[in-house]
Amino acid sequence: MNNFNFHNPTELLFGEGQVKKIGKKVKEYGNKVLVVTGGGSVKRIGLYDKVIALLQEKDLEIHELSGIEPNPRVSSVREGVKICRENDIDIVLAVGGGSTIDATKAIAGAAFYDGDPWDLFAKGIRIKNALPIGTILTLAATGSEMNPNFVISNLKTEEKMGASSPLLYPKFSILDPINTFTVPKEHTVYGIIDIAAHVYEQYFSHTESTPIQDRWAESILKTLKEESVKVLANPEDYDARSNIMLAGTMALNGLLSMGKETDWASHGIEHAVSAVYDIPHGGGLAIIFPNWMKYVLEEGTDKFVQYATRVWDVDPTGKSDHEIALEGIEKTREWFNEMGAPARLADYNIGDDKLELMAEKATAKGTRGSYKVLGKDDIVEIYKMSL
Amino acid sequence: MNNFNFHNPTELLFGEGQVKKIGKKVKEYGNKVLVVTGGGSVKRIGLYDKVIALLQEKDLEIHELSGIEPNPRVSSVREGVKICRENDIDIVLAVGGGSTIDATKAIAGAAFYDGDPWDLFAKGIRIKNALPIGTILTLAATGSEMNPNFVISNLKTEEKMGASSPLLYPKFSILDPINTFTVPKEHTVYGIIDIAAHVYEQYFSHTESTPIQDRWAESILKTLKEESVKVLANPEDYDARSNIMLAGTMALNGLLSMGKETDWASHGIEHAVSAVYDIPHGGGLAIIFPNWMKYVLEEGTDKFVQYATRVWDVDPTGKSDHEIALEGIEKTREWFNEMGAPARLADYNIGDDKLELMAEKATAKGTRGSYKVLGKDDIVEIYKMSL
Repeated sequence: MNNFNFHNPTELLFGEGQVKKIGKKVKEYGNKVLVVTGGGSVKRIGLYDKVIALLQEKDLEIHELSGIEPNPRVSSVREGVKICRENDIDIVLAVGGGSTIDATKAIAGAAFYDGDPWDLFAKGIRIKNALPIGTILTLAATGSEMNPNFVISNLKTEEKMGASSPLLYPKFSILDPINTFTVPKEHTVYGIIDIAAHVYEQYFSHTESTPIQDRWAESILKTLKEESVKVLANPEDYDARSNIMLAGTMALNGLLSMGKETDWASHGIEHAVSAVYDIPHGGGLAIIFPNWMKYVLEEGTDKFVQYATRVWDVDPTGKSDHEIALEGIEKTREWFNEMGAPARLADYNIGDDKLELMAEKATAKGTRGSYKVLGKDDIVEIYKMSL
Repeated sequence: MNNFNFHNPTELLFGEGQVKKIGKKVKEYGNKVLVVTGGGSVKRIGLYDKVIALLQEKDLEIHELSGIEPNPRVSSVREGVKICRENDIDIVLAVGGGSTIDATKAIAGAAFYDGDPWDLFAKGIRIKNALPIGTILTLAATGSEMNPNFVISNLKTEEKMGASSPLLYPKFSILDPINTFTVPKEHTVYGIIDIAAHVYEQYFSHTESTPIQDRWAESILKTLKEESVKVLANPEDYDARSNIMLAGTMALNGLLSMGKETDWASHGIEHAVSAVYDIPHGGGLAIIFPNWMKYVLEEGTDKFVQYATRVWDVDPTGKSDHEIALEGIEKTREWFNEMGAPARLADYNIGDDKLELMAEKATAKGTRGSYKVLGKDDIVEIYKMSL
């Protein structure tokens, strides 16, 4: 195990009805709240009205920013920052999924910065002060509800920028599984794959002797596998939605990466696809990840054997390590397929004409990953395997 | 899963050499520090001198309280509170094991209370203000380094009192596995058993559908089992000491009990033995826990079958659930025995003459546990099984 610091101060309020506490929680940070929402689903499910009523009950001054995009744009962030400054906002409350929370973080982080928010993120300027953030999560996927990271897009410069600041851990996150009951099947599946991908990025590591972190990762994967079947059979299965929601939060809050080198190549490889073809991140990950696994396998077969035998109960009898590892990767693909996720770039009508361009984008800032360090040519190979 | 709140703001600084940051970390909270230590081992291993030198480097005003007892006493707490008040202390720093940290919490929690510290705890008065706490851990066992709980003894009234306050999460805890290299074999084993016991108290629960929490608990138990062999063979095995240290911290920081009813009967049953016979807590737990398991087994065999098959790889073929469960319990006892832990009260020369008295003490405030609610007669039975 490597040395590490772990410090995650986000408070979770988990379970049915926890939203009732929202007025009291917000009030702890002041009287003026900016409520940030996405495309309208929170209004359709009645959550928005409920939250507003609960905030009004506490006589809070409510400001609103709606319409945050699935890949949140810096233009929305600028708008949010303007509202915060003009109204002397005390706390920013995200009601929605990862994109809404990410935009909220960017707004909170830029609220005290005099220049343009994009400069703040693009130039990697340290965020010195931020507004407090609260979240009410409606989609199990990104883990943004319990970490300090966010991703913002700039349509003008065609850039997607990730940033992070310890000041941007949400102060509290309300996780009511019922708020995910109406998530459509497709997005439920993408969310599950996103969660699994977060686990993989931290699991496949050359750091030795991390048995707790490894087993905790395997625990989340096994749980996702079991609960995905249940939630796809019954989208209103409270226990299944609960366990997937908790999986998403625990997958990317720092616990699985304690003292470990992590990889994150597949996320970069997928982001380049999404950037060029505007496909859903979870769908792209479903296509890319098993191929990344096959491509990097030889860099450390042991970990893949562990994955195959522990997560997929692959019987190792009479098989070579390579065969066992491949069987685990095959099981991963089968699981994604069973959930109805895409398996090839062709499923999104993506051909081989822009592989070089995408690989260039993926490596614009240098090589990717650590399990196997990937250059442009490696990434082109992985795209070819994914056609 | 039940509804739950989770909020653990303690920062962990884990790994070799992290102690170098102590001056900077303490300085974040002020200039006057009270350093609390136990019986002398921190001085023997040179850690104490190193810490003092590092604090001096930052020009901190250092006050000291040494000699905290294995079961920390309220008299020491009173002494610490006095030092804090007279010197306007800004932060209390524990350098030691769970007892030293517990005493530090009590001091920090009572520092702003006008009355006697014991009243504060015994009357369950809410702690409204507390000094910040830092810890440098030297023993993997209680988990006190990342939770808000502490236990204090009053020799005069023969009482042992547990208390808790969200204000008493350590601000930071420095966990350097090397500081546990010199822990004697006996205390290493007691620590491992204490950690395992914390896991059991949260694992054996009637709350349904908690797959992540259950698997995370099993992960810690499997890791303890593996690493205990290594650390007993080589007390200076850095990886083994690391994994056991992390296990101890993760076993009782709130993660394993998210959304679960917990039990804690065995801890109460053991505390009564320790109170009457002054035996080590870990030794007492080794004796009591497998017998508690056998006694409560029928209240929910499924969970014991899960424990046996997942943690101990018990082959279920051709066996009844009861047989599988018993085999898991037997494996637990064998593990404790292999580590050299005591298996019977007789190992401490404890006979059957005070079983009633101990059971009365254990139930002084009512029944114990939740997996099976235990009254005085039940606890006498468990003591009889333990003779």
